[in-house]
Amino acid sequence: MDGNSTPTSIVTIDDLTNSQIEDVLDLAAEIDRDRDAFYGVASRRIMASLFLEPSTRTRGSFESAMNRLGGRTITTTDARSSSMAKGESLADTVRIWSGYADLLVIRHPWEGAARLAAEYSDVPVINAGDGGHEHPTQTLLDLYTLRNEYKTLEGLRIAICGDLKNSRTVHSLVYALIRFGAEIIFVPAQGLELPDHVRNKMETVYDRRIERVDPGALQALYGADLGEAENAAKVDALYITPSQPHLRAMYEEGAKIEIQLQDGRPLAIYVTRQQVERGSDLSEESGAARAYPRINASTMSGSDFSKSIIMHPLPRVDELSPDMDSDHRSKYFVQARNGVPVRMALISLILGLKPWGARSMAQPSSATAGQVIPQTDYIRCATPDCVTQKEAQNARAEFTFFRQPVVRFVCAYCEREVKPGYFARPRGAVYYPIDQFLYPSWDASDSLFFTDVNDAEALGLRPALIAARAEPLAVEVTR
Amino acid sequence: MDGNSTPTSIVTIDDLTNSQIEDVLDLAAEIDRDRDAFYGVASRRIMASLFLEPSTRTRGSFESAMNRLGGRTITTTDARSSSMAKGESLADTVRIWSGYADLLVIRHPWEGAARLAAEYSDVPVINAGDGGHEHPTQTLLDLYTLRNEYKTLEGLRIAICGDLKNSRTVHSLVYALIRFGAEIIFVPAQGLELPDHVRNKMETVYDRRIERVDPGALQALYGADLGEAENAAKVDALYITPSQPHLRAMYEEGAKIEIQLQDGRPLAIYVTRQQVERGSDLSEESGAARAYPRINASTMSGSDFSKSIIMHPLPRVDELSPDMDSDHRSKYFVQARNGVPVRMALISLILGLKPWGARSMAQPSSATAGQVIPQTDYIRCATPDCVTQKEAQNARAEFTFFRQPVVRFVCAYCEREVKPGYFARPRGAVYYPIDQFLYPSWDASDSLFFTDVNDAEALGLRPALIAARAEPLAVEVTR
Amino acid sequence: MDGNSTPTSIVTIDDLTNSQIEDVLDLAAEIDRDRDAFYGVASRRIMASLFLEPSTRTRGSFESAMNRLGGRTITTTDARSSSMAKGESLADTVRIWSGYADLLVIRHPWEGAARLAAEYSDVPVINAGDGGHEHPTQTLLDLYTLRNEYKTLEGLRIAICGDLKNSRTVHSLVYALIRFGAEIIFVPAQGLELPDHVRNKMETVYDRRIERVDPGALQALYGADLGEAENAAKVDALYITPSQPHLRAMYEEGAKIEIQLQDGRPLAIYVTRQQVERGSDLSEESGAARAYPRINASTMSGSDFSKSIIMHPLPRVDELSPDMDSDHRSKYFVQARNGVPVRMALISLILGLKPWGARSMAQPSSATAGQVIPQTDYIRCATPDCVTQKEAQNARAEFTFFRQPVVRFVCAYCEREVKPGYFARPRGAVYYPIDQFLYPSWDASDSLFFTDVNDAEALGLRPALIAARAEPLAVEVTR
Repeated sequence: MDGNSTPTSIVTIDDLTNSQIEDVLDLAAEIDRDRDAFYGVASRRIMASLFLEPSTRTRGSFESAMNRLGGRTITTTDARSSSMAKGESLADTVRIWSGYADLLVIRHPWEGAARLAAEYSDVPVINAGDGGHEHPTQTLLDLYTLRNEYKTLEGLRIAICGDLKNSRTVHSLVYALIRFGAEIIFVPAQGLELPDHVRNKMETVYDRRIERVDPGALQALYGADLGEAENAAKVDALYITPSQPHLRAMYEEGAKIEIQLQDGRPLAIYVTRQQVERGSDLSEESGAARAYPRINASTMSGSDFSKSIIMHPLPRVDELSPDMDSDHRSKYFVQARNGVPVRMALISLILGLKPWGARSMAQPSSATAGQVIPQTDYIRCATPDCVTQKEAQNARAEFTFFRQPVVRFVCAYCEREVKPGYFARPRGAVYYPIDQFLYPSWDASDSLFFTDVNDAEALGLRPALIAARAEPLAVEVTR
Repeated sequence: MDGNSTPTSIVTIDDLTNSQIEDVLDLAAEIDRDRDAFYGVASRRIMASLFLEPSTRTRGSFESAMNRLGGRTITTTDARSSSMAKGESLADTVRIWSGYADLLVIRHPWEGAARLAAEYSDVPVINAGDGGHEHPTQTLLDLYTLRNEYKTLEGLRIAICGDLKNSRTVHSLVYALIRFGAEIIFVPAQGLELPDHVRNKMETVYDRRIERVDPGALQALYGADLGEAENAAKVDALYITPSQPHLRAMYEEGAKIEIQLQDGRPLAIYVTRQQVERGSDLSEESGAARAYPRINASTMSGSDFSKSIIMHPLPRVDELSPDMDSDHRSKYFVQARNGVPVRMALISLILGLKPWGARSMAQPSSATAGQVIPQTDYIRCATPDCVTQKEAQNARAEFTFFRQPVVRFVCAYCEREVKPGYFARPRGAVYYPIDQFLYPSWDASDSLFFTDVNDAEALGLRPALIAARAEPLAVEVTR
Repeated sequence: MDGNSTPTSIVTIDDLTNSQIEDVLDLAAEIDRDRDAFYGVASRRIMASLFLEPSTRTRGSFESAMNRLGGRTITTTDARSSSMAKGESLADTVRIWSGYADLLVIRHPWEGAARLAAEYSDVPVINAGDGGHEHPTQTLLDLYTLRNEYKTLEGLRIAICGDLKNSRTVHSLVYALIRFGAEIIFVPAQGLELPDHVRNKMETVYDRRIERVDPGALQALYGADLGEAENAAKVDALYITPSQPHLRAMYEEGAKIEIQLQDGRPLAIYVTRQQVERGSDLSEESGAARAYPRINASTMSGSDFSKSIIMHPLPRVDELSPDMDSDHRSKYFVQARNGVPVRMALISLILGLKPWGARSMAQPSSATAGQVIPQTDYIRCATPDCVTQKEAQNARAEFTFFRQPVVRFVCAYCEREVKPGYFARPRGAVYYPIDQFLYPSWDASDSLFFTDVNDAEALGLRPALIAARAEPLAVEVTR
């Protein structure tokens, strides 16, 4: 994301600044007030729906949005009937379809597929879900729903329940909520906790940490279980935003809990289904499956939830009971239909048919961009479903480098981490273990990194003699 | 169907009164005269095609119609690629899609699926075929074709041949024809006769009975076989409308046949294919399969058929020979293309873009509405593919009750019958066999009905002592 | 193709005269200059995409084109979900869909399917690929790309590489190139040479012959291999157009080669992938598969290729290296997007929304039309995937007859050859071996032809006594 320009493609929610997100939601609200006034905005424009993974809901929402704007849609929905079945690369597919349309909306099973698409497309690309990576337009409609209910995006309090591991919806949403200073309570099913790469991104990019909370304390905190009784143990993490210093100051053990209980802020509850198609299989862990966080009229009967709203990206299976459907707090169907105005707004902005707002385009000040390490030959992303694995010939081996709190390389596509074991200084004759790479003055971009020590040896490098150092290099680093 | 309002959804052909059917056909005729004048009528409107069962013809016809009106379409065609594959209920699918569009057109393999859809949709729903239940828009285009040929819908004479058991097309058509006073000759393949639930609906709702006719008499009646020689035995039923008293009076044995022979009214012939995908498997009954009613130039060569027309809902397999394709009496291709103006008309009316006629909205006077028995816990529909079986959590257990000519409960969704074995009077202490429930003064809505006697026993009810009655209760009933 | 009328359907590239092809390309160029000016040209028109074989690229291109013209599209993409799965014939499918739309675009796995479709459709049909037969709109965009590069269609020089056997794209392109006087060098993979029926059409219809060229001479001719070193042997054929007499005269052994080397005309290179889905399986011939003609930066590095362009109908697999993607000579992505304006132009012309040019509609003078033999009962096409085999009841047994250079019958649908073994003269009592049928004065249309001698015998014909003739009839024939 470039801090002072408007985005050409939306691959992740971070492709939009906070003010750009507000622009999208403001325009969506305007559309909601008089939808017919926007018919014709996208006249003569064609949106191609490339849904190379099963989906109907998101595609339907995008196509409704484009039609509501008076634009046209062309669709391909089945990987099996596509040219890809004849052996075509995703890069070629995207190059071709970008000649057919003014906008590509792509869903794909590979992580990072949308970024690859954006690189090869001549027209804007919107990510409609790329494997387990991100689903930024779902996040936009989630934020729109929250803002409509609470009149602000700032400092929300939200519990996110269920499959936090494989729900791309959750990942995009968490990043956005953090950027707007939300307090997030993670309530994962056992074994489906928020994955390390998301936690690490929270720490390195947004400087936010997750604190583990005693279940009993949490129950005391919110006055009610988020789920059935036996599920209380699943409430394993509480994220507290440091962007609210008056709150952070209070967070010194027990005391904070009392404060939270009394502040009276409502708690939004975001429920997700088990992502069976991405490997979230709890079938053998019968106890865990039984303990999947489920929301129903009974769990929502406490007075603490009187100002709550219930959200769900849908489709649901059995984690959200139909007995909540007519409850005034249930917003999941409203949320789903919010997708249309939100996507109308995003399409209008991304195609330049409506202007972005005049407000600052800057990133939230707390974001750390990392350092881009382009085109390295000796480290590779290890995520099996990453587009860099699936289509190595067309994806760049590009990584973003963070030194704090640990040395991390993040794949530019799937944003998952790879930890190379060794590095060498430019024009040096030796290689070091990666945990020695912590001098603040060293520039990652001119160093060499190696996953396999043999690659270093093959370049004629020798292991550095560092055992005699009195203190590890790492202690010299200051934050 | 509410007798004095315009329909919001079209689930069955009975959702339209006779005059509303005429409205649809009148508007279709107007469209046929100047189709271009209707371009733009549905501007800015979106129709969602939810075709969750394989189909191309009906979907193509609906989408052509919507485009001819200047409206837009969004489509999902494959249950496997839909959210339903992720475990979503039909009710949720409908709720979501009704947020994307102004009109839902749904085809679904479950009987009653369209009614469930209409209950959960915020926008009008048109049934494009729900399992073996109904296909009302096919009926509308059938009626349009008949009216174009014979200049009236009143008192037509039509033979319906082939698979009467599993053809939803036939069921919807029969109800409509009855309401307009048609004389219908059923010519089923052996084993694929009109099912009991359709016959029973004819009797209870429309007060029409099917008379079995001696094949020889029928041959004498029409002067020609309807099919090959060995198929004559299949012509097993002749329906005579009592709405034409002068005809009914003549139907006293043999005499009527002579009259019929001489009245010169043309006979429309409606051919259907074997619905293999709904279980109409005649493969093992080689004789019956061989005897499937087939129409070809030879069978249609008799002078009695000179003013006949041949109709077929298509697709055909081998029951209608290509040697009829260029015959001037063959109307099946005309019939197919009549689907476009008829659906343009229906969409325009149902969306309120064109006004319904000012004529009476009343049901045909002969229709008996039945009494609705809502939300009973102790009787359940037994149809395997009924939406109440497939999605019990979202379907109401609602039945329509008829006392004549037999006590019948009809599932509100699939319209098939269930016969509870027992009933109890309100605040009574005993339960009775269902065939005792015939006092005209007893109100079904405050009685309890049981499929399983154990449910009655569990409520503390005891069997009624009725063995000693001199005469059965049934005889007290008068019609 | 009728020499002095505008086409109603485009089944093969020969349905367009040379000047009509130029009309399409001229209009495409106009569209490319100001595409928006054409929005609305097809307003109120509906194009049905019947893609009964997997495809996304061609369908996307057509649908983009129709939408760019302001028209509407309705789509069916999957044979399994179509009425055809219920046993419907292609003829019926086409009859129905032609009632839904103003234009049918059809792709189908059967050879000749598009011709059958055109026969049964009430609206224009455009062939978007029918089995291994033709793909004329691909040829139009290929020609458009060539003309944009070389400013003419006349006398191009082009090498066509790869799978010449099963690539319908190649077949349509070859016929068009011949008609515009191109010099074509065929560079097939071993076992995937240009099939006999295409060579024979070249000879009989266009009076062009293929000369086999010594690989070493070809290398001398073009100064570089077309492929890797070990592939040189694959360059097995050189087609020289006789429409350029000054060139033909020079083609007397070695001398011509020098001329060609020095004429400086650029060589376009057309690369194709192996059509695995049509049976082009080289997997067992590991040597041949390894020797598949592949183009990459290395093969294109010779100075002789400095003015070359690289084309490919796409999708590619591995026969065209990504290292060419950023080369200025690579035109395959441009070529793909040229499909949109070219199809916009063709749709506009075929629907009569834009006028054809005033230039002559005549065929190239060198074309030989052949003599149509309609409705013969005793010869049948033997191509397994020909529509006449798959749907015999709806296809006419019609053949085009050529007597030179050999007696040939060509199926009207798949255009492949069938050689009946026998013939009889009208009102004759005897039948002859087919190779006796060479009297110039004999009229094929009133003779009888037999594949099976038993059919002749069954008509009471006896074998002719011809053994005693001093010379075969064939020598009497003059060209």
